[in-house]
Amino acid sequence: MKETRRLNVGVLGAGRIGRVHAENLAYRIPEARVEAIADVIVEPAQKLASDLGITNVFQDPRAILENKDIDAIIICSSTDTHAQLMDDAAANGKHIFCEKPIALDLAKIDRALAAVEKAGVKLQIGFNRRFDPSFKRVRDLVASGELGEPHILRITSRDPAPPPIAYVQVSGGIFLDMTIHDFDMARYLMGSEVEEVYAAANVLVEPEIGKAGDVDTAVITLRFANGALGVIDNSRKAVYGYDQRVEVFGSKGVAIAENKTPDSVVKSDTAGVHAALPLHFFVERYAEAYVQEMRAFVQAVLEDRTPPVTGLDGRVPVVIGYAAKKSAEENRPVRLSEIDR
Amino acid sequence: MKETRRLNVGVLGAGRIGRVHAENLAYRIPEARVEAIADVIVEPAQKLASDLGITNVFQDPRAILENKDIDAIIICSSTDTHAQLMDDAAANGKHIFCEKPIALDLAKIDRALAAVEKAGVKLQIGFNRRFDPSFKRVRDLVASGELGEPHILRITSRDPAPPPIAYVQVSGGIFLDMTIHDFDMARYLMGSEVEEVYAAANVLVEPEIGKAGDVDTAVITLRFANGALGVIDNSRKAVYGYDQRVEVFGSKGVAIAENKTPDSVVKSDTAGVHAALPLHFFVERYAEAYVQEMRAFVQAVLEDRTPPVTGLDGRVPVVIGYAAKKSAEENRPVRLSEIDR
Amino acid sequence: MKETRRLNVGVLGAGRIGRVHAENLAYRIPEARVEAIADVIVEPAQKLASDLGITNVFQDPRAILENKDIDAIIICSSTDTHAQLMDDAAANGKHIFCEKPIALDLAKIDRALAAVEKAGVKLQIGFNRRFDPSFKRVRDLVASGELGEPHILRITSRDPAPPPIAYVQVSGGIFLDMTIHDFDMARYLMGSEVEEVYAAANVLVEPEIGKAGDVDTAVITLRFANGALGVIDNSRKAVYGYDQRVEVFGSKGVAIAENKTPDSVVKSDTAGVHAALPLHFFVERYAEAYVQEMRAFVQAVLEDRTPPVTGLDGRVPVVIGYAAKKSAEENRPVRLSEIDR
Amino acid sequence: MKETRRLNVGVLGAGRIGRVHAENLAYRIPEARVEAIADVIVEPAQKLASDLGITNVFQDPRAILENKDIDAIIICSSTDTHAQLMDDAAANGKHIFCEKPIALDLAKIDRALAAVEKAGVKLQIGFNRRFDPSFKRVRDLVASGELGEPHILRITSRDPAPPPIAYVQVSGGIFLDMTIHDFDMARYLMGSEVEEVYAAANVLVEPEIGKAGDVDTAVITLRFANGALGVIDNSRKAVYGYDQRVEVFGSKGVAIAENKTPDSVVKSDTAGVHAALPLHFFVERYAEAYVQEMRAFVQAVLEDRTPPVTGLDGRVPVVIGYAAKKSAEENRPVRLSEIDR
Repeated sequence: MKETRRLNVGVLGAGRIGRVHAENLAYRIPEARVEAIADVIVEPAQKLASDLGITNVFQDPRAILENKDIDAIIICSSTDTHAQLMDDAAANGKHIFCEKPIALDLAKIDRALAAVEKAGVKLQIGFNRRFDPSFKRVRDLVASGELGEPHILRITSRDPAPPPIAYVQVSGGIFLDMTIHDFDMARYLMGSEVEEVYAAANVLVEPEIGKAGDVDTAVITLRFANGALGVIDNSRKAVYGYDQRVEVFGSKGVAIAENKTPDSVVKSDTAGVHAALPLHFFVERYAEAYVQEMRAFVQAVLEDRTPPVTGLDGRVPVVIGYAAKKSAEENRPVRLSEIDR
Repeated sequence: MKETRRLNVGVLGAGRIGRVHAENLAYRIPEARVEAIADVIVEPAQKLASDLGITNVFQDPRAILENKDIDAIIICSSTDTHAQLMDDAAANGKHIFCEKPIALDLAKIDRALAAVEKAGVKLQIGFNRRFDPSFKRVRDLVASGELGEPHILRITSRDPAPPPIAYVQVSGGIFLDMTIHDFDMARYLMGSEVEEVYAAANVLVEPEIGKAGDVDTAVITLRFANGALGVIDNSRKAVYGYDQRVEVFGSKGVAIAENKTPDSVVKSDTAGVHAALPLHFFVERYAEAYVQEMRAFVQAVLEDRTPPVTGLDGRVPVVIGYAAKKSAEENRPVRLSEIDR
Repeated sequence: MKETRRLNVGVLGAGRIGRVHAENLAYRIPEARVEAIADVIVEPAQKLASDLGITNVFQDPRAILENKDIDAIIICSSTDTHAQLMDDAAANGKHIFCEKPIALDLAKIDRALAAVEKAGVKLQIGFNRRFDPSFKRVRDLVASGELGEPHILRITSRDPAPPPIAYVQVSGGIFLDMTIHDFDMARYLMGSEVEEVYAAANVLVEPEIGKAGDVDTAVITLRFANGALGVIDNSRKAVYGYDQRVEVFGSKGVAIAENKTPDSVVKSDTAGVHAALPLHFFVERYAEAYVQEMRAFVQAVLEDRTPPVTGLDGRVPVVIGYAAKKSAEENRPVRLSEIDR
Repeated sequence: MKETRRLNVGVLGAGRIGRVHAENLAYRIPEARVEAIADVIVEPAQKLASDLGITNVFQDPRAILENKDIDAIIICSSTDTHAQLMDDAAANGKHIFCEKPIALDLAKIDRALAAVEKAGVKLQIGFNRRFDPSFKRVRDLVASGELGEPHILRITSRDPAPPPIAYVQVSGGIFLDMTIHDFDMARYLMGSEVEEVYAAANVLVEPEIGKAGDVDTAVITLRFANGALGVIDNSRKAVYGYDQRVEVFGSKGVAIAENKTPDSVVKSDTAGVHAALPLHFFVERYAEAYVQEMRAFVQAVLEDRTPPVTGLDGRVPVVIGYAAKKSAEENRPVRLSEIDR
């Protein structure tokens, strides 16, 4: 394809993340054009389409999947629909951007990835945090060798507030819903695979989460293939906002990505020195990352290159998530090979 | 006007800042639509229009000024054309966004402002820094009284590199070209008018600037009507990048806006602890501010409100600039009333 | 005792830490007076005594232990002598400040603590980090409830360079020699006992350390009695210096103690923004903490109060250390009750 | 003199600063010994002597000045006594450490300096801030050329609270009492002499200060012999504490010394991100600097070297102070040559 061609995309799912991607495609990525939007619930799709001046709105995704003018689809619907939509999109020769996770079931994931492979379409998984300028900078410092051999990874990942209990009940649990991003970040930053996980977890934030069979606070130890060690700490509720920090310590130095704030003002008064809280939640914190990930997808398709977050990148964190879940349940370190066989 | 109406704008001038505004209007402000672009040099206008998918490109601004479908014009051409274009736009009933300065000649400014007033069109001057989230936060802290009575203002404003000598020769000098932004910031932050200026200046960066009759380094003291004192320090060349900091010290506390960086990574190695340099120059540093100022203009027009940076706000910094110039030449404090009479 | 009385102390051990304590007692704590110094190796003791203007120098500690004019002894000799010296000091009615650890053998510790208890003398263990102003401030924020219920503890503790291999061979291993400080810090900050430990460890810094049967890099998960989770990460070699940070995350907020630097200068140049590395090692980093801990000991004795770091505080971290060691060897979480029975 | 000799000093003045120096000499500088203390008011002198275990306490300074066993005197009495005590000390062959300012009268200063010169004794003036590790680091970066040619100096110097009005009335005014430290800092950091001063000042903090004929808020522009420009901003009342920052901007970069805090803890809660206020006032902020300056004096005497802050260094800031005062009164830039002739 020539660089001057525009990529025609269809967006499946008009919820919060669907809106983020559609707006970015419409306003921030001149090389792409949102041709159509579909959602089983028609109203938000129509509102989104109207806001962006898009005329094609559907309830049935097939109207998009079978549209010859559409080159690629952006899957932002609920998790349980991802794998089937990937199958269908692949069968229709559409390139695919799919929100994480592909599915909660490894067999389903494998079938979907096989369908994509067979169809030869491009696939990118929505691990947006890789495109955050600060995390990318840390990755670059590791990859370039400026930090030497990586020895210790630290990820702090805390949400400003827990999701509704109804969501917790179907989310697959904290490790598959929330920590999955951190597992991806761990692989991305270290450039080495996780081999074993030990998860210590508890219900400290919200008893209802415990009643739903989940935990809300966790400290997870990772052992990497290269011998390095890592730790992720999670909480469903940081009252001061979305806490997203990473640190890689290596033989030549350490790199720490601090939180991102809406302004750089420091105020001092009789009570102390005060600065702004972190940006509230993922939509604000990763606004730039969402643009960059979609731009990377569009460019990869237009330039016929492999997208930067592959199907395998979408699969491995689910395996780590199951290992963490098992570890927390059995209170012992669990090797990934116990899950993935 | 209804909120759902779009504002049709024409952009005059397709240089660096014209491109910034046109792109923001096209991609970031759904309520506006760039109908046409004009530039005396046709090529950059055609390139810009092509990039944004705009079909109407002209060499003569009249083609835009006289177009009935256009509601507002964005003046981004060279400074010497601003006042006349404002006159013409006002005569044609167009709302006006005009880059600073309106003109270097106070009489010209006054004529243009009178024309705008007579025509009853809306006018916003391009003092973009007011829309930077950090500076706006400092202003809010002053306006809300959280800092008490403001006593001391400090502005550090240093460019990464001097402009070409050819530009220095026609720019009106550092006080009218560069410090003018800081004079606006001073009025904005303090909410009080400057009454007297003392400018100490020198040629320390580039002897050619001195040969062109200008200076490249300055420390400027301001006396405000409310009794407060201020200081601006300028340099045409900060090798570490664009240094843009402000501080307001008051009876109840101090607020400091620090520089803005592309990432939040801190790296430590045997040589020290290292962080990112400030964003390179105004296009990067004020990217968000440019969007916000244009959004404010579009909304003010659509909602029939007075735009947040008025014609007077465009005029006063020019007066302060002349006072600073006179002060530097005569090495004595100069009252604004000496210039503006 | 009256406040105006001076405490006469004898220092046992004239090595690095003995010198720190002797100098602080001589120059920083007017309420104390160093009467005598003893060391099995006479030279450093004589040098130290001469520097401080102290006339009584001995090779045999009994000359101090049996001196009626001495109120308290400061045990800074090698670890294997601590317990016996405590016994002897207690038998002679001397108050005791003892460097950590009391011993590597729990039975020995228990005998020494019993002897102290029986004699009714005061005992303080040298966990100096508790007296660091930043760590103390974090503890105060936890104790006052300002952070709410503590949920997650993070300690980063990395040395600038590994000790000599000869020392590694007799130190008891990283968990009993280095992490022991962090185990104390964990109990101190959280105000809750550790119940279970999981230690993931590896040899990444120095193969010789592995050959000596030890590890040099570790990530240790802690479970506290109050349900909170903690993580300590250790490295024997941080090339950028002594990295000593703690973080307590609770239901009402988070407190983070950053590293301490020799100056507050930030330099920006074409290569970036640069700040000072952390203070080099424990003598510099905890200079103030060493003064404060000794002052606390002297005051506790003079005012007949229980010293702030008790014998139990000296014993528990050794138990945690053995649990961590066992955990690393068996790659499973180990409860403290498995060690301490 | 041999390095092993101790310097016997007498302290004249047992007020706040006399106590600081006496304690440092007694506890922090093993090479010195406080032999005697004198104060016209006997009580504080006796208290101080008792605290430090010093037996010789006098009301009449001559008892110290004429004591053959005393090598050096530390002048900490009221400003109006400094010059005469210097004369007397010089006449008695004592080395002299004298608090700033030497006198408020240039003729008196010159007589005192001549007496010192004639007697050939060593003299150090108490500009303690030069010994602050952060300011010293900035100076080193300038002196080493790492910042290139210095172009702009910024000093922020704000006290936590104004002195009593009774003190304001005899202090010589803000420029001679408070800014004098900043004038010294300016010369020290830049390594170039100030040639001209412009001071804009006002009464914004406390009307009583105005009634006493003084000002409480000032912005002072400096022109240096090397062409560089500088600015000092002062306030008698920063509600958030002692604000002491400096910045040198040069052709190769910028160095900024930030405030010093009692701890490095950052707390985040729902209200924001909070850090500690600066250390309260000069005794806390410059605690280390006071030790270092006295150590430098003692070593200079013992090693027969010129002390690092000379009589000239004590004189020039007084000249700048008078120029600033004249400038503020006449609202015009004043050259130092107008004062010093």
